[in-house]
Amino acid sequence: MLIDLRSDTVTKPSQEMRQAMADAVVGDDVYQEDPTVKELEQLAAGILGKESALFVPSGTMGNLVAILTHCKSGDEVFLDEESHIYFYEVGGMAALGGLIPRLISNKRGIYHPKSLEDAWRPANIHFPNPGLLCLENTHNRGGGAVVPVERMKEAVEWARKKGLPVHLDGARIFNAALALGVDASVIAEEVDSVQFCLSKGLGAPVGSILAGSEEWINRARKWRKMVGGGLRQSGVLAAAGLVALKGRNRLAEDHQRAKDMARAINDIAGLTVEIDKVLTNIFMVDIDYPGGDADDLVEQLAEAGVLVNAVTKKRLRFVTHWDIDDISAQRAVGIVAEVVGK
Amino acid sequence: MLIDLRSDTVTKPSQEMRQAMADAVVGDDVYQEDPTVKELEQLAAGILGKESALFVPSGTMGNLVAILTHCKSGDEVFLDEESHIYFYEVGGMAALGGLIPRLISNKRGIYHPKSLEDAWRPANIHFPNPGLLCLENTHNRGGGAVVPVERMKEAVEWARKKGLPVHLDGARIFNAALALGVDASVIAEEVDSVQFCLSKGLGAPVGSILAGSEEWINRARKWRKMVGGGLRQSGVLAAAGLVALKGRNRLAEDHQRAKDMARAINDIAGLTVEIDKVLTNIFMVDIDYPGGDADDLVEQLAEAGVLVNAVTKKRLRFVTHWDIDDISAQRAVGIVAEVVGK
Amino acid sequence: MLIDLRSDTVTKPSQEMRQAMADAVVGDDVYQEDPTVKELEQLAAGILGKESALFVPSGTMGNLVAILTHCKSGDEVFLDEESHIYFYEVGGMAALGGLIPRLISNKRGIYHPKSLEDAWRPANIHFPNPGLLCLENTHNRGGGAVVPVERMKEAVEWARKKGLPVHLDGARIFNAALALGVDASVIAEEVDSVQFCLSKGLGAPVGSILAGSEEWINRARKWRKMVGGGLRQSGVLAAAGLVALKGRNRLAEDHQRAKDMARAINDIAGLTVEIDKVLTNIFMVDIDYPGGDADDLVEQLAEAGVLVNAVTKKRLRFVTHWDIDDISAQRAVGIVAEVVGK
Amino acid sequence: MLIDLRSDTVTKPSQEMRQAMADAVVGDDVYQEDPTVKELEQLAAGILGKESALFVPSGTMGNLVAILTHCKSGDEVFLDEESHIYFYEVGGMAALGGLIPRLISNKRGIYHPKSLEDAWRPANIHFPNPGLLCLENTHNRGGGAVVPVERMKEAVEWARKKGLPVHLDGARIFNAALALGVDASVIAEEVDSVQFCLSKGLGAPVGSILAGSEEWINRARKWRKMVGGGLRQSGVLAAAGLVALKGRNRLAEDHQRAKDMARAINDIAGLTVEIDKVLTNIFMVDIDYPGGDADDLVEQLAEAGVLVNAVTKKRLRFVTHWDIDDISAQRAVGIVAEVVGK
Repeated sequence: MLIDLRSDTVTKPSQEMRQAMADAVVGDDVYQEDPTVKELEQLAAGILGKESALFVPSGTMGNLVAILTHCKSGDEVFLDEESHIYFYEVGGMAALGGLIPRLISNKRGIYHPKSLEDAWRPANIHFPNPGLLCLENTHNRGGGAVVPVERMKEAVEWARKKGLPVHLDGARIFNAALALGVDASVIAEEVDSVQFCLSKGLGAPVGSILAGSEEWINRARKWRKMVGGGLRQSGVLAAAGLVALKGRNRLAEDHQRAKDMARAINDIAGLTVEIDKVLTNIFMVDIDYPGGDADDLVEQLAEAGVLVNAVTKKRLRFVTHWDIDDISAQRAVGIVAEVVGK
Repeated sequence: MLIDLRSDTVTKPSQEMRQAMADAVVGDDVYQEDPTVKELEQLAAGILGKESALFVPSGTMGNLVAILTHCKSGDEVFLDEESHIYFYEVGGMAALGGLIPRLISNKRGIYHPKSLEDAWRPANIHFPNPGLLCLENTHNRGGGAVVPVERMKEAVEWARKKGLPVHLDGARIFNAALALGVDASVIAEEVDSVQFCLSKGLGAPVGSILAGSEEWINRARKWRKMVGGGLRQSGVLAAAGLVALKGRNRLAEDHQRAKDMARAINDIAGLTVEIDKVLTNIFMVDIDYPGGDADDLVEQLAEAGVLVNAVTKKRLRFVTHWDIDDISAQRAVGIVAEVVGK
Repeated sequence: MLIDLRSDTVTKPSQEMRQAMADAVVGDDVYQEDPTVKELEQLAAGILGKESALFVPSGTMGNLVAILTHCKSGDEVFLDEESHIYFYEVGGMAALGGLIPRLISNKRGIYHPKSLEDAWRPANIHFPNPGLLCLENTHNRGGGAVVPVERMKEAVEWARKKGLPVHLDGARIFNAALALGVDASVIAEEVDSVQFCLSKGLGAPVGSILAGSEEWINRARKWRKMVGGGLRQSGVLAAAGLVALKGRNRLAEDHQRAKDMARAINDIAGLTVEIDKVLTNIFMVDIDYPGGDADDLVEQLAEAGVLVNAVTKKRLRFVTHWDIDDISAQRAVGIVAEVVGK
Repeated sequence: MLIDLRSDTVTKPSQEMRQAMADAVVGDDVYQEDPTVKELEQLAAGILGKESALFVPSGTMGNLVAILTHCKSGDEVFLDEESHIYFYEVGGMAALGGLIPRLISNKRGIYHPKSLEDAWRPANIHFPNPGLLCLENTHNRGGGAVVPVERMKEAVEWARKKGLPVHLDGARIFNAALALGVDASVIAEEVDSVQFCLSKGLGAPVGSILAGSEEWINRARKWRKMVGGGLRQSGVLAAAGLVALKGRNRLAEDHQRAKDMARAINDIAGLTVEIDKVLTNIFMVDIDYPGGDADDLVEQLAEAGVLVNAVTKKRLRFVTHWDIDDISAQRAVGIVAEVVGK
């Protein structure tokens, strides 16, 4: 039996979610007649403190629709080089939106106001129109890093001065909220729009939420239709999403387990984890290992029954989630030790 | 209780589908590890006689991904003005694909070779590069019209001569197959790619299938990811899709019911249906009605308990489906007669 | 010596234009420091009755920049199937702007309000956002047809009710003005933006003008830069443009000559010209000719020394211009008669 | 009389160029019938050692057309953050081409193979398809920096291994050739396409050249038409371009003058120039100046009669060119010393 630590996206729906899907009251959501989708959207909007929300089939679509709704083709979007939107979303912002990234130097998703100011260019006929600032919290490639609310506020304040709207890729916003000890609404308060995933740590099989003002969500709804995200009886997915969302405080267990695993793995010769950076359910393991680079180790671990991802040639990513309990966490550490120790 | 004849998209999942969703064996389909999605894709590919298939969350996304995979921004796409792709898909071909439509005069989706030749322009620096021919069978705005296999072959042959790939929007391909008395694979045989919907007459809550060669589907998979259609444990949807697909011959009932309703409605003064054009589960009702135009009648019918769509100012569309049995069909006819007779 | 009636784009700069180019006072127009460009832009804006104008290197770029400035990717643009923008501009509106055409049935560029209303669709999640109405006067593929001011006003009024801006492709606006007996400003009065060509009947070697409000032109200037139309010492072109623009009333000669030629050609057996439709410097010749189709006749005429274009398989286009005097017009007619009479 | 050191784009056409424009034999270049344009294209192709060349009205258009011709929307383009294409071309690669930049760390345009390899990502469904590598020589924001032929070869070799075509933004390729002591064809040899400007140091009023294989240029020609770069009697511009191109060795004077000025300015307290980096006609001046930041100094110098550009808050750019002789160079240095010394 494999222990899958590649991502929290691999979680399988619980029995409660499966039952909820089977029992879901549904309608045609393109006609806005699915009561379960509406219930989920209202609950999500409420939790985030936004006027309105929209169910989308994936986080990538949520971010894409957000960007398309905020910007006009030809704009530039301020984000960081390691952000999910820039790094992992197939260049959709340029390919589908005609938007060019303006990259901000940063520390695991935290933008220093000076970095923002360095990226900013005065109006000039050679430069695209500034269109949007994107934030990411928790920050995936930063190792599940948490952006403190104060630092988010600074960035948003800067954007306000520049006249830029702000979108938060909050795929794992509830991990951030738990780590920061605040409600998700506090994190979402400052930004214009926010996306979070039901399908990651929350454990739903499919789906994400996009939230913002009512007027903005109405416009986003058309972009969602254009990219093919207008679904029919999506209440079956929303039903699982409701269970997932209500159980969001369970994520604290993933955080604890990640910290425990990180400490144990840091004790293995050849592997290093910066423990003080393990704040949520993701941790990065730097390897100094005679047996090859990250890709090789990924393969060797897979053969031994532990799945993880390589994020650079010398770095692995481990993610804890719903389907990883203490026993499998400990077994995973043991297998890693054995493989690396060979 | 409303009788909903607006579209076959409004069907609710059956108990069997709900159970299948609850029991589905799933994995992360972005990692291509969901066995139920794979099973559905293989079954669908087999039925269509194609090498490979891809689950997508909607027909609009299936068509969009097909177009993006076949063409390069700047190409022109040959299709008809009443086609779903041009008329109902929010202009995504241009907005997201940079593709311009070249419209072909046609009769309910049937392209005469002369019409195709009229639309064709010789290579010239002023004209876009020809990129794709799209067909639609059955043809939605043509009133569920069926394109005979011979006429499809003519069009495909023309495209082959011109060096164009061909995509079939077969959202209701199984309706076409039943009406033509052939296997769907016969319809799909000539074209390079085909999309069909699990969520229309087949009754699944969410999802469509895109099929083509293995190499082509591999490229389509990346475009699906970019537009946000890469889902996680989408096996829950595929499980319902499998039930839907296996039950595809049930569509014959919808056809019979549509014909019966069409005849009865044609007998109502002020309403006309071209009976010989009622071939599948859609029929168009032309109104000559003192009580207002199509939008008004739609409203009056809704108040009386029958939902239909207006497609022009003088034309209504009725669609039969899974959730319409003989009793509700007859009741609907009675209500229409009453409302129009007032 | 060939007699070139293919287009008024083939005119060669006059001696006066050449001298003006050689003497032009210039600066760097990307820095907005070219006095001759500015002089031309101001003169053009004044003639059209607009606040501001912008020199662009081609009519295609003028129309493209106009569309990009008016619309947002994903919008639909109302225009006619035979319009230059849709037919001859390489699909740039979709490829570069993400804009989808919504085609209006029309008579040689004249839109009946009913046709506009037929093309209009109520707000619906399936339809793109309406973005722009385009007019063309004179209408190229309509055979240099003239749209009366009243008919333009009707269309613009309709657009105003719908909240749409209006762009006029006035590549040959001065031909229209002469034919209508009004100032170009009367034609341009109602629309938001207008493009005209210096390089067609006016005889300049290179360039077009885009005009509109000051705010709009400022935004257009950035789109011009993006597509590569920001030039340096373009005063050399503007100098010729100024000569061309000041000599615009000369176009009346081209109109007279076109009418004379049209009558003479209509007398040739096998060729037909609808004389009452010859209003400007373009006329269409329908062929009923045993020697082949339009392409063949084009070739045979070229061998005999007369160049014209085929616009369909049975139709040729003749265009009079600056470099065609009475003698070459008569000689051309003689050659046509001889070739067709063989 | 202002001394304009902002850019070599500000050069005014010489008397010889003006005469050439006045005397140019021209035709309609959209029909490919302008003999002077053809002569220029052939000369340019020959000098660069390429099969074919295309006249374009600007360097931005040349680069844009190159990118559009090489790539398909959705691809990623490897270039550096300070490259002209990414920094100064209004985001056209994304807005018009749907292409996302993948930024390479570099030293003034020189890519270390390791940096290229760091930017490269293995095939993965989350990443765009790699489409193109862009080089820039001389490198504008690197201060007219020269990329040695060996370093270009390394980068091209890397691209070949990855299956990427290579485009060279050689806006100032002849400055690079002189500085490297090689023919421009040696620089252009390895790459698939190259753009250079006639309107910068070469002194022509308008225009650039794009060169590549014949098949590639034929495709580029259609993209040029789409973006509005198909001109009519552009032989008037090509005539000046021919004079400019033939006089390309004059650029050596600009290099000498830049070096002389750089040394003199480096001697002014508060201003620093890295002398060993002054290799062509551009040099960067870092300011440590109590009178304000770069923008302030630009303004003060302008009032005193010297025009330069700020490129960051602490850095000015000086560019020598055709219209700057020894006397004005010395006067400029004197004025700078005076202003800064106040």
